[in-house]
Order: sequence, then structure tokens, then C-alpha cells
Amino acid sequence: MTITTALEALSPVLGDRLSRSKPDLAAHGQSESYFPLTPPDAVAWPETTAEVAQILAICAEHGCPVVPWGTGTSLEGHALALEGGLSLDLARMNRLLEVHPEDMDAVVQPGLTREELNRDLRTTGLFFPVDPGANASLGGMAATRASGTTTVRYGTMADNVLGLEVVLGDGRVIRTGTRARKSASGYDLTRLFVGSEGTLGVITELTLRLHGQPEAIAAAVCAFGEIGAAVDCVIATIQSGIKVARIEFVDAETAAAVNAYSRGEFPEKPHLLVEFHGSEQGVAEESQRFGELVSEMGGEGFRWSTRPEDRRALWEMRHTAYWAILASRKGARAVVTDLCVPISRLAEAVEETRADIAASPIPGPILGHMGDGNFHAILLIHDDAPEELAAAKALSHRMVERALRLGGTVTGEHGVGAGKLDYMEEEHGAGWALMGDIKRAVDPKGILNPGKLVPRG
Amino acid sequence: MTITTALEALSPVLGDRLSRSKPDLAAHGQSESYFPLTPPDAVAWPETTAEVAQILAICAEHGCPVVPWGTGTSLEGHALALEGGLSLDLARMNRLLEVHPEDMDAVVQPGLTREELNRDLRTTGLFFPVDPGANASLGGMAATRASGTTTVRYGTMADNVLGLEVVLGDGRVIRTGTRARKSASGYDLTRLFVGSEGTLGVITELTLRLHGQPEAIAAAVCAFGEIGAAVDCVIATIQSGIKVARIEFVDAETAAAVNAYSRGEFPEKPHLLVEFHGSEQGVAEESQRFGELVSEMGGEGFRWSTRPEDRRALWEMRHTAYWAILASRKGARAVVTDLCVPISRLAEAVEETRADIAASPIPGPILGHMGDGNFHAILLIHDDAPEELAAAKALSHRMVERALRLGGTVTGEHGVGAGKLDYMEEEHGAGWALMGDIKRAVDPKGILNPGKLVPRG
Repeated sequence: MTITTALEALSPVLGDRLSRSKPDLAAHGQSESYFPLTPPDAVAWPETTAEVAQILAICAEHGCPVVPWGTGTSLEGHALALEGGLSLDLARMNRLLEVHPEDMDAVVQPGLTREELNRDLRTTGLFFPVDPGANASLGGMAATRASGTTTVRYGTMADNVLGLEVVLGDGRVIRTGTRARKSASGYDLTRLFVGSEGTLGVITELTLRLHGQPEAIAAAVCAFGEIGAAVDCVIATIQSGIKVARIEFVDAETAAAVNAYSRGEFPEKPHLLVEFHGSEQGVAEESQRFGELVSEMGGEGFRWSTRPEDRRALWEMRHTAYWAILASRKGARAVVTDLCVPISRLAEAVEETRADIAASPIPGPILGHMGDGNFHAILLIHDDAPEELAAAKALSHRMVERALRLGGTVTGEHGVGAGKLDYMEEEHGAGWALMGDIKRAVDPKGILNPGKLVPRG
Repeated sequence: MTITTALEALSPVLGDRLSRSKPDLAAHGQSESYFPLTPPDAVAWPETTAEVAQILAICAEHGCPVVPWGTGTSLEGHALALEGGLSLDLARMNRLLEVHPEDMDAVVQPGLTREELNRDLRTTGLFFPVDPGANASLGGMAATRASGTTTVRYGTMADNVLGLEVVLGDGRVIRTGTRARKSASGYDLTRLFVGSEGTLGVITELTLRLHGQPEAIAAAVCAFGEIGAAVDCVIATIQSGIKVARIEFVDAETAAAVNAYSRGEFPEKPHLLVEFHGSEQGVAEESQRFGELVSEMGGEGFRWSTRPEDRRALWEMRHTAYWAILASRKGARAVVTDLCVPISRLAEAVEETRADIAASPIPGPILGHMGDGNFHAILLIHDDAPEELAAAKALSHRMVERALRLGGTVTGEHGVGAGKLDYMEEEHGAGWALMGDIKRAVDPKGILNPGKLVPRG
């Protein structure tokens, strides 16, 4: 009754779709963040829900941990097998199963990525809007409650998943939700599994809400003398009912990095980058109303356009920002922080963070999703300087404390994983113990992604 | 260790805010539906969260059931004390605690009603959009995951509750969510409690998302020769990105009832009643685009207006519909059904239901929230004719079976309560057993609204 006996029992079921090769283990022990390599004992590539169920039943019997794996793009070590066991790679379950244009929904397997889905949807007039940046798998995005640049208009994964098929820790298969747009039929299991980070079950199918491709898209950019004015502009925009599809913020440091990286000529000031989706007439009206607010708030350099080539140029800053920031310090890698506060406290949160980074030994440009009160500092450290990782962790720690002090949350969109576990009690108090009670009720053997999200032991 | 000993222990805590008087018990044993009078053993009116916590701790110790009570407007018997015990009336916890205009949120106590909240918000430029018809308490609306006429634009209670304070069955107080707009920090406890119908905890405070009062409102009405054309028009409207704020349906029978009740001159045909929220220019554009779709789909009598007096007249049909329907059969009372299907199956669902009612001995006009695929038949029965209640239950049963066959849910917005409990297993399968596991983990003594939502025993 060990991991070893579990793998012996799995071998005849999976054949060469169960691997213990060093490269496979290493590939599933990496993350896009600062965590050390943490290889699992084996990697499995199931192809059907029935296989996932069989794998979980065997692992439950032998007490072998199971950690679902999507594309490995999470930033908080969610998919690392901290207690060993099986990495369950869902890459082969990557089909678009159904599209229902009249109902504006699609049924997909968890390994399909968001870009693949949108490619498949191109001719339907529909699209899936949630955009966390990475070309993540839709199962992983649901499991981590991903959001991103379009959340201010289209919501997070919690708003865009209508239903799930989930395999529980004992191999039972359940379905949550329906293709109806709403329901008052019992506990919202869909939204319990969305954001549960693989600790309650393995998502094997998703029903996703789609949206109409906008007839017209306008993009606008403007600069502000200080962060507070940019935040005031965002607040006024949202209050006035202007339906921005994206309203992104980059700070002066990010603008400088982009200029250096791609020979831009952005003023080295805080910027807002905004997008509107609607009819030709609608986006023109909204762009103009937004432009008026920008002037009122003292913004400068405002311009907007619906021409695709102009839009592309306008979004260059945002699209290249991460790479431009990485390139701004030679040989550095990034520790990406994440917090979210009520928007009225956003200027304070950004300014305090800016000052804190300035007083530290490492650089860290800031960018974020202004309409949600969510931002990230991209802290740049050198691997051969352990004091820099320590400085980054200390900055991240103070960002978390700041988020809680300002009435926010320790993670707006990157999730808990291994990186934010130590802050859960402070944010949730007795609610965190309740999460543990729920975990034990749903996964009594504790084989699903152990060591994550809920209290230990 | 009984209900009696619990009430003895509660008496010194609550004084005259604990009642066993017949009128109080009767008032808390009624519902707005067909359930027989089911009085609790006592009614308590707590005034603070600390009192609720004390009451629950005492009731847990003595094994006394506790059933939260808002305004008693639910339609499925949610607030009836099926196993006796205490009705916990939250009417005295009805304050608006905080409004944050910049963050567009408000913190309220659970006994505040939605109309009271909107009255208090009038001068802020903000409003709370969820509108289930009844002037329900916001705590009750959260507990039942209420929705209604504006859901197509603004979402259900699940989309508009940012956080909760909840007293658990053992008296512990937890807080879920924050005032930040989004979070990836652990299980979504907020959305677990929203829709849990008082079976997991007592909501003692809510943080609600507010929306900007629209600068302009336009309303439009039109008639169709048949239900299918009206549904096609709704699908085309939503697909084309026209942001309706309401898109309501009434059938020919409802139009006839309204004509008889208020001397209207509506054609006795299926109607759509639509509302647009936005800028003057925006709602004019959307009304016109909608009008074009109406013509394409063969609709007739289309007219729209932004003048308040015209809007009032246009909405007369919808506002008076329930009373007009009730008045259409002398001495009758209503059994209100509720189902929700994918919108592509809505025409089928309505037409089959229409035919089924026509073949039954009782009348039942149909109306609903077309954009969500959600509709209700208002079945009219006489109390002195038990065969009519039986016929209504049989029609409701077949509606439920129809909803499931068409890929929908047994309740779009009225909830499970006592009325839909018998359909939970059919809709959710093993997911319903999981709901029971969660219930036992969160409320191990089983004192919170027993006999509802989860598997018995």
C-alpha cells in the first residue's frame, strides 16, 4: 500500500502512457516560478474519463498522491507533487467536444488550451474571453480560477464555467451544473471545484460560456503624471457605465523597459491601456467618453483607434511587457507577485509597493488589471544571489500584508498553490478550517494534490 | 437535550424576542405556496451577529433545529420548520452598514430588503440590480441564489455577492470573500453559501456588488405569431451582442389576462418585453438594432421609448401579470412552477408545457425570463378541489422531467426547499450524495434547516 505498489497496479492499465523516465519526471517537476525542481514518482497520460476514474480508484486503494497537470504554467507551484506520487497529465484529453452556437456554450476536455479553443471557434462568431496571458489548459484555468486582462468585462473562470465533469478521489464520476444559464438547484458544486486547485477532484470535462465576437474593437492608450490619477480615471470610467473590455495598467518602470526592448517612445509614466468591444458606433462613443474622463483627470497623449494595425501598436506595450521586463536585467528570472484590493485602495497599494521595491536591492516593474484592483510586481532576481530571492520573498510578504490591511485578498488570480499557503489562515481565519473540513469530506483519503490549499494534517 | 430544553436556555438570552405565541408561530409556518401550515416551536428575533452565534451554540448543544426566516416570500417552502425547532427571524438585522461608492459595493445586514436598499442608494448613483419580483430580504435572496428579470444583464445573487459573514451550526462566525473584485484564494465559500438555503449556516452580513444607475433606460415591446419566433429573436439579440437589461416573455394567455384585468389592448399573442440600460445614444442604438431583429423574425407592433411614462405603460403587462393571472380565475390561488433549459430548447419546453396545460383541467398562463431560458407556469387551482392540486403537481412534475430531458435544471431560480427535494437525485446523481457529504462536514449536528436540499438522514 505505497506509491510503489500503486504504480505497479497502474502499469498494466496505462502501458507506455505511464512513465518513470527522468526527463518526464523533470518536466513535471518544474514550474514557471522560483520553486525547486520537485519531480513526481511517475507521470500518467490518461485518454478518457474512465481511465482517470480507474487511476484514481487504484491510487486511492494504495494511498498514492495524484496531482493533476495541465500546461505547467501556474506561478505558485500548484502542480508540483510535494508529497510525491503521480503527476496526472491531461494533455491527451484535449478535444473540443461540442459547440452550441444558439446557446453560446462549448463542451471541452481539460487539456485543450484557450488559444486552441479560440482557433476552433473562429468561424462561429463566438469566443472564449478569459485570458490569463499564458496559453494555459482550460482544465487548469478552471482549477485555479484563472482570470486576466478581460475579467473587468467578461468575468473570471468562476463566471464562465457552466458545468463540469469531475472524477472524485475514490474514482466516482460526478457532473455539476447543466447547460442552462442559471440554476437554483442545490449547492453550487461547479464553483466549489473552480479554484479548488486539484485538491477536491480531477476535472475531466468543462462546459464553458462563450461570448459573441465583438463587431468592433477599439483600443486606447494614455499616460498619467501619477498612479492616483490613473486609478481615479478607472473609477470614474466604471462608475459612468462605460463597458471597458480591458483596462490595464503599466507603471513608469514598465514603460521604460518596453522602450528599451522594442524602441518604443512611450513617456516614462504610468499608462492605462484600454479596449472597448461592441458595435462600431458603440465603441466610438465609449472611446470618446473615456477620452473626456482622461482629460478631466489630467491624462495625456490619449489616442484611440479601431484599426487593427493601430490596435496592435497600442497593445505592443502590454503584450511585450513581461519579456521587456525580463530583458531589462541581464540573466535575471522573475518572481511574479499577485494581490488584489478594493479599487479605492489601489493607488495606495501600488504606491506603497513601488516605494518598497525602490528601497530594496532588486528591480520590480508593476503592471496589472486595474478594473479588478489586481496587480503584479515582476521582481527580477539572479539565481546565483540567494539574498535576492530572500529580498523578493520579503517584498512579496509585505505585499500580502498590505493587501490584507487594505481589505483585499492575498491572491487575485495566481492562486494558493504552495506559494501562498502560509497566508490562508490570516486571510480566512476560521473559514480556512472550514475549507479543511470540506476537503476531508470530499477527499477523505487525502490523495488529491496533498500539501496544498487546506490546513496540513 | 430537546427542543424544549433549548427554548428554556434561549429564553433568558432573548427575553421577549423569543415567542411561542400562536400568531407568531402561524406567521412563520406559512409560505406563499401550496404547503400546509407548518408552525415552528418558537420564533426568535436576534439583533446582532453575536446573538445569532449564541443562539446557534445553544441550539447545537440541545439538538434543536434552526430555520432562518427572511420575508417568507420563497415559493418552495424553504423557511418551513419541517422538523420543528426555532424559526430565526432576521427582520431586526436590517441595516445598511456601509456604502463604498468608489468600489461600487455595499455592506448590509440580511434582513434588509432589496427595495429598502435601493431606496437608500437612490442619491448615490448606484443600485442593486437583482430583482426576483418579491421585495425579499437580501439574506434570503443570497440563501436561495435568487435571480429574476435583470439576470440576463446583471447576473444572479451568485454574481452579485462579494462576501458574507456566516454563523456556522456550532456558533462559530466566519467571513467569506473580501471587498476586492476577485480572488483566487482557496475554495469559493461565498458561492457555496449562496444557494445553500440555510442548511450550512446563517448569513448575518453581506457585501454586495452595486452597479451604476443607467443614464438612460429604453423599453420596447413586440408580439409574435408563435413562441418559436420569439425565442429565435432572443437568441439573435444575445448573439449579436445587444446588451438587454431585461428580456421577458409572456404568453398569449397572460396577455389575455392582462387585457381583462387592466383593460389593455395587447394582441392575444406571445410578447417580448425588453429593456436597455446605457447612455442616451447607446440605448437608442440598441433599441433600433433590436427592432430590426424583431422585423426579421416576423414580430409585430414593435415600439420603444425612453420616456418614463411610456416605459411604465410598456411594462404594465409584466408588472401586473401575476395579479392579472390570479384574478383571471375567481377564488383561485397559484402554484408557481419554475424550470430552466438551454435557450435552444426553450421554444420546445414552452410549447410542450403549453400543450400539457391545455390538456389539463386547470389554467396556467406562462411567463418567464427568456434570456436565461427560465420560465414559470402560474397554475391556478381552487383550494376546495383537491384534484386540482394533484393536477398542478402532475403538471409541475412533467415540467421537471421535461427540463432534465432538454438538458436543463429542475429549478432556475425558486430553489429546492421542500418542493423540489425529490428531484435532486435525478438531476445531480452522485453529485447529490456529495452535497450530503459537504452538509455533514459543515453542520455535523444537522441542526440547520433539516429535511431540506441534501439526502435525508
